Amino acid sequence: MGFDLPTLLRARLPGHTLPAPLYVTEAAHEADLNLIFGRHWLFVASGPELPEPGDYVTVQIGRNSVMLVRDDDGVVQAFHNVCRHRGSRILLDPRGETGNLVCPYHQWTYDLSGKLIHAEQFSDCVGSGRHDLKPVPVRDLAGLIYVCLANNPPPDFEEVADEVLPYLAPHALDRCKVAHQEDIVEHGNWKLTIENNRECYHCGGGHPELLKSLFHFFGEYEITPEHQDDHDRFVRTTAEMAAIWDEAGLPWRAIEKLSGRPTGFRIERLALDGPGESYTMDARRACRKLVGGFTNARLGTLHLHTQPNAWFHFLGDHAVTFSVLPVSADRTLVRTTWLVDRDAVEGVDYDVENLTAVWRATNKQDGNFVSWAHAGAGSDAYEPGRYAASEYMVDMFCTWYTERLAAHTT
Amino acid sequence: MGFDLPTLLRARLPGHTLPAPLYVTEAAHEADLNLIFGRHWLFVASGPELPEPGDYVTVQIGRNSVMLVRDDDGVVQAFHNVCRHRGSRILLDPRGETGNLVCPYHQWTYDLSGKLIHAEQFSDCVGSGRHDLKPVPVRDLAGLIYVCLANNPPPDFEEVADEVLPYLAPHALDRCKVAHQEDIVEHGNWKLTIENNRECYHCGGGHPELLKSLFHFFGEYEITPEHQDDHDRFVRTTAEMAAIWDEAGLPWRAIEKLSGRPTGFRIERLALDGPGESYTMDARRACRKLVGGFTNARLGTLHLHTQPNAWFHFLGDHAVTFSVLPVSADRTLVRTTWLVDRDAVEGVDYDVENLTAVWRATNKQDGNFVSWAHAGAGSDAYEPGRYAASEYMVDMFCTWYTERLAAHTT
Amino acid sequence: MGFDLPTLLRARLPGHTLPAPLYVTEAAHEADLNLIFGRHWLFVASGPELPEPGDYVTVQIGRNSVMLVRDDDGVVQAFHNVCRHRGSRILLDPRGETGNLVCPYHQWTYDLSGKLIHAEQFSDCVGSGRHDLKPVPVRDLAGLIYVCLANNPPPDFEEVADEVLPYLAPHALDRCKVAHQEDIVEHGNWKLTIENNRECYHCGGGHPELLKSLFHFFGEYEITPEHQDDHDRFVRTTAEMAAIWDEAGLPWRAIEKLSGRPTGFRIERLALDGPGESYTMDARRACRKLVGGFTNARLGTLHLHTQPNAWFHFLGDHAVTFSVLPVSADRTLVRTTWLVDRDAVEGVDYDVENLTAVWRATNKQDGNFVSWAHAGAGSDAYEPGRYAASEYMVDMFCTWYTERLAAHTT
Repeated sequence: MGFDLPTLLRARLPGHTLPAPLYVTEAAHEADLNLIFGRHWLFVASGPELPEPGDYVTVQIGRNSVMLVRDDDGVVQAFHNVCRHRGSRILLDPRGETGNLVCPYHQWTYDLSGKLIHAEQFSDCVGSGRHDLKPVPVRDLAGLIYVCLANNPPPDFEEVADEVLPYLAPHALDRCKVAHQEDIVEHGNWKLTIENNRECYHCGGGHPELLKSLFHFFGEYEITPEHQDDHDRFVRTTAEMAAIWDEAGLPWRAIEKLSGRPTGFRIERLALDGPGESYTMDARRACRKLVGGFTNARLGTLHLHTQPNAWFHFLGDHAVTFSVLPVSADRTLVRTTWLVDRDAVEGVDYDVENLTAVWRATNKQDGNFVSWAHAGAGSDAYEPGRYAASEYMVDMFCTWYTERLAAHTT
Repeated sequence: MGFDLPTLLRARLPGHTLPAPLYVTEAAHEADLNLIFGRHWLFVASGPELPEPGDYVTVQIGRNSVMLVRDDDGVVQAFHNVCRHRGSRILLDPRGETGNLVCPYHQWTYDLSGKLIHAEQFSDCVGSGRHDLKPVPVRDLAGLIYVCLANNPPPDFEEVADEVLPYLAPHALDRCKVAHQEDIVEHGNWKLTIENNRECYHCGGGHPELLKSLFHFFGEYEITPEHQDDHDRFVRTTAEMAAIWDEAGLPWRAIEKLSGRPTGFRIERLALDGPGESYTMDARRACRKLVGGFTNARLGTLHLHTQPNAWFHFLGDHAVTFSVLPVSADRTLVRTTWLVDRDAVEGVDYDVENLTAVWRATNKQDGNFVSWAHAGAGSDAYEPGRYAASEYMVDMFCTWYTERLAAHTT
Repeated sequence: MGFDLPTLLRARLPGHTLPAPLYVTEAAHEADLNLIFGRHWLFVASGPELPEPGDYVTVQIGRNSVMLVRDDDGVVQAFHNVCRHRGSRILLDPRGETGNLVCPYHQWTYDLSGKLIHAEQFSDCVGSGRHDLKPVPVRDLAGLIYVCLANNPPPDFEEVADEVLPYLAPHALDRCKVAHQEDIVEHGNWKLTIENNRECYHCGGGHPELLKSLFHFFGEYEITPEHQDDHDRFVRTTAEMAAIWDEAGLPWRAIEKLSGRPTGFRIERLALDGPGESYTMDARRACRKLVGGFTNARLGTLHLHTQPNAWFHFLGDHAVTFSVLPVSADRTLVRTTWLVDRDAVEGVDYDVENLTAVWRATNKQDGNFVSWAHAGAGSDAYEPGRYAASEYMVDMFCTWYTERLAAHTT
């Protein structure tokens, strides 16, 4: 029953799933909260979730609640949601708008920069700076809001920003609005959620809706006769799209820096099958109004993944963001947000049901996969299994994960 | 993640909230059950909850169930609710009446003094005394029933009884009946429930119903211009009431012995605002028939608080008792009981809705405060905050709490 | 709070209930899963629950899921329900039928002997034997399916089989079908479920329905005047039935080997009261078609008990099996299965309500007893109590239990 993190990290076999205790134990969950979610950049919201000054979003990261609030200059600030008087939560709702940040317990009042500006019986403290809210490092990456719970966040985030901005900028996320958001709680460890996202080996058997637009096969692994046609079509379509992307000035080549660094990430633009426009049941755009002023809807999909906890799809007509947050060793919150151009009109330009159908179905299927994998990892009979060639990104995620834990435990 | 109680106790800063682990950890909860709830006098019921011989109440205190039963002499006895044969619970309901105490498993039968009087196949044990119920020390303080789970309960309870009896006796609780009882489970540690009760700094923002009768300000702390009128009226009314209390022979001056002893307590009679009669929405009595044979309904309120787990309000027309019992590190049962003269007739002399409205609303608000404070105490950003001058009783409760733990751990 | 298993085992007083920590702690639950449920033969299903090739049943034993599947030769095989690729659960339903065992995650496919026969991108592994399912030792004892999670299961099971087969065989369980199955989760430790089953001291006060057919008193303990008639009738009827059993060639004498060995068991045929045919509300058969080709319905009941987790009643017209599996320290799954001859027709030969009434009522009552005993064992006031003479089998179960733990910890 003993849990020794360094031993477990050394025991991890390259190319194989993690040792079981890293998936199922309370001790690993604590380590993950402290060393992974406590020390890395986490994607927690998109800018359009709090578009106006005074708009806020609260996010629960393990035992910590963080307030994101857009200040009067339009900049997103982040603070710990803990009053400096008796520790009460300050903002109680998941989102809303406010003038100042007023603690509901004894009305201690902070402005949007976190300064204590009113506290009865504590007039000596107001303005002293001693009781201001504790700030949380925050970055706004082309409309993707990241926070880090550590005071010395990984510096390589700036480099990531430089590399991915040219890909993201044309999609103008900050000119979008939230069309729909959905939270699901998967019954498994968050790492199994990420692992599941990092491969499409399971897509053939598991995601019929997604395969309406996503190519079933997009690698060089073991092309069986039944997949030969798909593969050829994928190669042909990719070449065709590359010309379109180049002409439009849209960078598309993969950048893959998944391990050997704090902020692992991967970005790549991919062709889609059929009409090639969007992640919908017919692969056509779900929103008539395109994002970023695009005029051609057939742009495939821009995939971004940032470790530890997010992935994104940017299409010509919408964007989808996914934020993964551990609730407990065996429960994981997956928040999916669909965004369209802010001038698009629901019912006229887009229909939420059609916009969200593929990923709602896919999320549900993925939630099942995660729960089954988690249940098995808890069995005495579990032993780390070998990843397929097409699961190499899962392998690299596990490598990154053990590297990051090792970096903070030795 | 380590939990070292002596270190935590030493780390407590006077005038400040407790170190977080004392609020949120399982280890602190265990220490509280063993050292606070296992070794101090606990208020668990009022006499009118079991008025007749054979009436019983069962109370769950942590992992222990205690039976309170009124014997044939009218004296309340207390026993562990554990059969001496195979350990089964004996009384299963929260209240009821019975002739003997019969275990439902194999019908072992005990009389109301705890003696085993029947056990098939164990005729040699009956009458031997070896298998009698385990008694629990119990005191009946003017109708307030206290138990202590330790066999050597704190002896200073007798002194407390001597001091508070002159205040309580005129209210004749034993001649009352239960008009209503309500259990709520607050989502926070029991100490935050008590702390919340020990200050009215939060009343202005949080308890509009309570402030119909309770003076908003009753100290000398930091009288802001907006509170000057309230303060003056409080001083004036208190002087007026003091004359009335003296004339009626009702002691009213505060006795405050909150720390430096096992059984911390505080008692004081307070003026109420407006008509000054009761804790109702119009500050007028809720029960036409007064308690204790009083003829003047305008008697303000007698506040009693006993550590660790109770507070009480005795008014001219009714009494309210509050019993606080930890359910887990983050769940606390608060049982509120409203009592009126036993000859008062519901629907004629009083209306339950009107009688209970203020404290039902206030309890609900307090439950929110406790849950918000608990959530914050679990955050990494929490650090002990400074109490306001008007929160000095909270500070003293925390001092008493750390003293008591220290007394039993070193 | 410390938990030291060897010390607790030494502290166990013969003739008394177990020390409390063995009933209520998480540590004891872990020890029970590892050393009792992980190393002994467990009854988990009856053959008629999976009558045809391809039929399967999945069973959760602590953290392990086991697949029972009848292969093409009609033999029941058992495997860990864990895919060798990424550890996913393979069979998700509690029962069903299948051709091969196909993992729902990436379609790895195993045949009914556990061999990997298909895995995309892993063609080198198929047929290598390196990725076959992990087998679980399994025995089919006259239609009672036992598994053992250890690779070196206790060898004395073969001897048990030799001893009980002559008793069981005439009841032809393999020619039966499942008439009804019911799961209940008792709110107590699994050992209290077994202890409760091992005595009828509680039957007089607790099981009115069962006592329609079961003799209230069947020992030589302390015959009180009120039980003298019952006792005399029991002795008389037993003599009468012994002649019938001998004539029919049905072995009936008790074999009792409850301790001093890994696979404790007890078997005995017992007379029933009144018409003496079955466990029904009128003690008459519930199924017109008898099992095993019997022509006389009045055969009393054959009781079998195997440690740690099962008991059985074989009657002339049906059989009832009980499987006990710990869910947590304080939750226990009891699965009851009623079986009748496979040619019996529901609604014609038997009525499910009538067939199951006695044990449904009795199970519910027993679930209460277990929950009350568990609650008491968690109290500080609990101390091991002395068993009555008629509870000697409970005592022997506890002796076996502590022996088995000691065998695996020293």
